[in-house]
Amino acid sequence: MIEIKGGVCAPKGFLATGIRCGIKPGSQKKDLALIYSQKSCNAAAVFTNNKVKAASIRLSQEHIADGKLRAIIANSGNANACTGREGMDAARRMAQAASGILSIEPSQVAVASTGVIGVPLPVDLIEKNACLLKASLRDDEQGHSDALEAIMTTDTRRKEIAVEIEIGGKPVRIGAMAKGSGMIHPNMATMLAFITTDAAITGGALDSSLRHAVKRSFNRLTVDGDTSTNDMAVILANGEAMNKEQITINNEHSEMINGKSDYDIFSGALEHVCASLARMMARDGEGATKLVTVTVTGAGSEDTAQALAKSVASSSLVKAACFGADANWGRVLCAMGYASASMPGADFDPEKTSVSFKSRAGEVQVCRDGGPVSFSEEKAKLILLEEEVEIFISLREGNGTASVWGCDLTYDYVKINGDYRS
Amino acid sequence: MIEIKGGVCAPKGFLATGIRCGIKPGSQKKDLALIYSQKSCNAAAVFTNNKVKAASIRLSQEHIADGKLRAIIANSGNANACTGREGMDAARRMAQAASGILSIEPSQVAVASTGVIGVPLPVDLIEKNACLLKASLRDDEQGHSDALEAIMTTDTRRKEIAVEIEIGGKPVRIGAMAKGSGMIHPNMATMLAFITTDAAITGGALDSSLRHAVKRSFNRLTVDGDTSTNDMAVILANGEAMNKEQITINNEHSEMINGKSDYDIFSGALEHVCASLARMMARDGEGATKLVTVTVTGAGSEDTAQALAKSVASSSLVKAACFGADANWGRVLCAMGYASASMPGADFDPEKTSVSFKSRAGEVQVCRDGGPVSFSEEKAKLILLEEEVEIFISLREGNGTASVWGCDLTYDYVKINGDYRS
Repeated sequence: MIEIKGGVCAPKGFLATGIRCGIKPGSQKKDLALIYSQKSCNAAAVFTNNKVKAASIRLSQEHIADGKLRAIIANSGNANACTGREGMDAARRMAQAASGILSIEPSQVAVASTGVIGVPLPVDLIEKNACLLKASLRDDEQGHSDALEAIMTTDTRRKEIAVEIEIGGKPVRIGAMAKGSGMIHPNMATMLAFITTDAAITGGALDSSLRHAVKRSFNRLTVDGDTSTNDMAVILANGEAMNKEQITINNEHSEMINGKSDYDIFSGALEHVCASLARMMARDGEGATKLVTVTVTGAGSEDTAQALAKSVASSSLVKAACFGADANWGRVLCAMGYASASMPGADFDPEKTSVSFKSRAGEVQVCRDGGPVSFSEEKAKLILLEEEVEIFISLREGNGTASVWGCDLTYDYVKINGDYRS
Repeated sequence: MIEIKGGVCAPKGFLATGIRCGIKPGSQKKDLALIYSQKSCNAAAVFTNNKVKAASIRLSQEHIADGKLRAIIANSGNANACTGREGMDAARRMAQAASGILSIEPSQVAVASTGVIGVPLPVDLIEKNACLLKASLRDDEQGHSDALEAIMTTDTRRKEIAVEIEIGGKPVRIGAMAKGSGMIHPNMATMLAFITTDAAITGGALDSSLRHAVKRSFNRLTVDGDTSTNDMAVILANGEAMNKEQITINNEHSEMINGKSDYDIFSGALEHVCASLARMMARDGEGATKLVTVTVTGAGSEDTAQALAKSVASSSLVKAACFGADANWGRVLCAMGYASASMPGADFDPEKTSVSFKSRAGEVQVCRDGGPVSFSEEKAKLILLEEEVEIFISLREGNGTASVWGCDLTYDYVKINGDYRS
């Protein structure tokens, strides 16, 4: 697997664009994106499990039901959530605007929105600019780049990746973009992630592969514990790579390469793509100054490791300590302890627990067997002052391991969210 | 019921004190408290359900097992949590220090600690100062006040209350103190709350009454979503009020006053005491500028109302919006939505949900039937700028109602917790 340029336009047969249609009032930023496949696609998606779902989510759930999509239209600046029946009408009109210019069925279009909740979406601005949207579609990196800019809100960094793998002797590509900075605590799916691939792959294999990748990437990401109303990760596969045998879950026809089936190779690459985007989102968490990776190893199961790691990464006290570069490991055990108490099965023995802090600047153990060990506060401070730090927890219970990505809690998080609407 | 002065010394037969023994290095603040009943007591307590429990919690659980206690010894400045076997030894030595000076059994002493986690407790300082502790015991408000000061850490306000009710023609008093400002997201119990009463009441009735009160008070409180390792609420009842019939759960012997049994009257007063302390704790949340009460009404059940209200009060985004006085009601629905998704039974229909913001400055409805209503942003801002605000949510599903107390998320929360240990 190699990383390549081009984002969602790297796979063959995909076009993209992003323009400004005026949804973000008083801003010159792009706010409307379109991604389009010249051929029909198998598609898979996962959506937020928030009970309060944006209109775009509910409509896209309808449209993905048959496993086919050819386009994604997305706006930033307005979440089209909590907008009642008019919100559903607006989402339908968005899909129609895209289907009209592309001459495809509206049911072939996924709709995504991100931005402020509870404000009616000015869908007429989207309709008015549909022609411009079509005219600006491109099949190169610029198209991808414009689309990515158009879905960003409080993001300060670009989240994009593309990779190439070989399947059945043919190069197969996966390209992706994502946005997400706040209201991030995914469950099922997260934020917006748009992924394209030219792999020939069955709908079932695509769905299975996406769910597996999401579980190990976006579902291991937290910025502020708030699961959004608008989370969506969607992948379109148009088969243009012409890999000889379509990838299936069982892959009984495919040659095994190094013990891996075509499905394994594709899934590994997709997990890499999603995990890379998840790390980029944590690193760009609202107000964050650092990426905090929490790794739990030696847990009774992978799920237990994930639950405990997520609780540590979500703790306001742990996050504030990371901001202050304070080696306050007691808060780490505390966060594991209350997670364990509230989740049956997420058990561990505090007295067998060890904790270390790691970064480029070194590693320091701060807790062994649930109790303190003497360590250099100075060294710990240097380690925690780095931009990427890891809290490494060992449980000595079993083989379950998981890493969760989060960030620190800073003055700027409070500032950004004290007045987001205006 | 009338509110009176005197705190935990208001009920007959209770003494208290607080001194400085040097656990908080470099500080002149008091750090060691003792509360003592001259007669033996029925006692009840609830403890943190965090899997990682402080040594003081585990020892106090042992000591309360027979339903009898006569004293509480508590220190601030050190949580004696994650301190291994030595931590348990230190907790036992604390109990012995108190039992020695009071000439009672160590098993009659509850032990509580609060402060930094993972640092060995310098219990020799407590032993050395035990005589001073005994010499300074008082039965008046000053004794209560000294004890209260000695359990405070980042608290900036005193949490204390005492009430008098009449049972069987006799005045019965309940006095209480609490500490708590951060690491507050109780489940089962919270923070430290010490309650005394001179009521004659059976152990069973006392336990039942305390659990009911805690469920409706401390368990409806959140500052930062972090359930502490050291939470404890304990009540001692010494019977000195000499109310004729001992209060029992069934109270078959007691006269009904306005349809209320002695047990009802006592429980009502205890709930008032605990709820008052819970509000004081939310108001004094670390860095908080305001008390935020989230009320959910019309839910399918009281438990559903509580779960939804707690999710809203816990949301970092809602809390930051309160700090910024931003009427960002979409975040309120979002927080209810993800709570509902993760808790079976905590169901509601977003399309029947209405939200208002209230304070001394007035009331403004911001959402009706899950969608926006037009409102004056200026008026909403004025309402949210007050020091006590309420987020009022109506669901039109049933009769379940609950209020949860929280606070805003501020720069100072980040500051306080970015460097708590040093």
